[in-house]
Amino acid sequence: MHRPGCSRDETLDTLFQGQLKIVQRKRGYRFSIDAVLLAHFVKLRDGEEVVDLGTGNGVIPLVLACLYSTVRVVGLELQEEMVERALRNVDLNRLGERVRIVQGDICSVEKLFSPESFDAVVCNPPYRGAATGRMNPDPEKRIARHEIKSRLADFLRAGSYLLRGGGRMALVYPATRMVDLLQTMRQEEIEPKRLRLVQSFEKSTATLVLVEGVKGAGSELKVLSPLVVYTRDKKYTREVRAILGE
Amino acid sequence: MHRPGCSRDETLDTLFQGQLKIVQRKRGYRFSIDAVLLAHFVKLRDGEEVVDLGTGNGVIPLVLACLYSTVRVVGLELQEEMVERALRNVDLNRLGERVRIVQGDICSVEKLFSPESFDAVVCNPPYRGAATGRMNPDPEKRIARHEIKSRLADFLRAGSYLLRGGGRMALVYPATRMVDLLQTMRQEEIEPKRLRLVQSFEKSTATLVLVEGVKGAGSELKVLSPLVVYTRDKKYTREVRAILGE
Repeated sequence: MHRPGCSRDETLDTLFQGQLKIVQRKRGYRFSIDAVLLAHFVKLRDGEEVVDLGTGNGVIPLVLACLYSTVRVVGLELQEEMVERALRNVDLNRLGERVRIVQGDICSVEKLFSPESFDAVVCNPPYRGAATGRMNPDPEKRIARHEIKSRLADFLRAGSYLLRGGGRMALVYPATRMVDLLQTMRQEEIEPKRLRLVQSFEKSTATLVLVEGVKGAGSELKVLSPLVVYTRDKKYTREVRAILGE
Repeated sequence: MHRPGCSRDETLDTLFQGQLKIVQRKRGYRFSIDAVLLAHFVKLRDGEEVVDLGTGNGVIPLVLACLYSTVRVVGLELQEEMVERALRNVDLNRLGERVRIVQGDICSVEKLFSPESFDAVVCNPPYRGAATGRMNPDPEKRIARHEIKSRLADFLRAGSYLLRGGGRMALVYPATRMVDLLQTMRQEEIEPKRLRLVQSFEKSTATLVLVEGVKGAGSELKVLSPLVVYTRDKKYTREVRAILGE
């Protein structure tokens, strides 16, 4: 069915019992639970300024603006078509006063923002190395999922530039690549301080890792108990239902 | 009460329902559940040769020899008094045919063993940095707990020297220092491949991390669901009881 604000190759999805509306492509890049878990993982304070690096359809800024009524969020996105869709999502949810979408490359953030201009950075970076995995034939999806345009280190370097001293950067990444993530964070002087693994079931291996680092901090990591997504009968657990606002 | 094979300042403890007997000092260094969890975490194959770096009272070699009836284990220990106690523990358990205790410094393993002479290495290294935490006034305990004689990197360098290509090294370390551990493993070419966090209770933060690395392997980490030590009513969980052979 065709819906208002949404073209034929797009869908209109909702979050938080319809409180948030998200237009996204039917094929191409679509937000996943990862983005929502990340938005819930980062802890923000009143009036803070936050930037989401590689914002896609803008789902993370919208969720953050929804969860925290006083924060201001910038979503930075390279691909024009996604920027356009993110802008429509901001309008659709009437969050234009607190959510700003900016087109640009994370590799040249210094042309877009002053150094140390944010309190927090969030980032759901591309997951696969450019040389690994099957290449996706859809170019929009391929750029988002693979590290063609920007490797993990570039996102962290951008975060490090944008953060004030003591500012936090939170990321979600595949658990299989946790060592790469932690090592790159440290290398870019975002010291990992709080970490939570995400498991599909109580006894299964972890699929994702959520990590919050602090710019310039000393080394001492707090590892929280894992977030379990499904119950034994394959329903969302109570914690995930609360995160999704169900 | 004075027991045979055990002096006045020592205790005789048992594991696996009395199957293993361990003499250790009343004060000074005493083995903890960490060592037993590590011995259980590493997976050995028939007839493999294993070395435990910094073996203390010899508890890890004894547990491994008990769990795997065909492996041969060397326990390397620097401090004379501990070596003497480890030797008594081997005799007490009649495991002299498969467990050998060697006195020596992990920083000069090349004087003691040929390169690539083991299939697996286990290690429960000192936990605190030399410059952090309160110094323990007991020198035996201080050397074991602090990184005075050997830093984490030295243990990993020794492990890397001793392992055959594709051999495994398993370590237990405080979860708060997981980033240091993973980074140092990678730096010494022991790529982290299997990781398990240890939590006191189901919802508490992790206290320890168990990691197995493979010499020269590519990067892909498997993160198991955490090991929970206590039930809500502060008894050992079923899994920990099974590990302790209770």
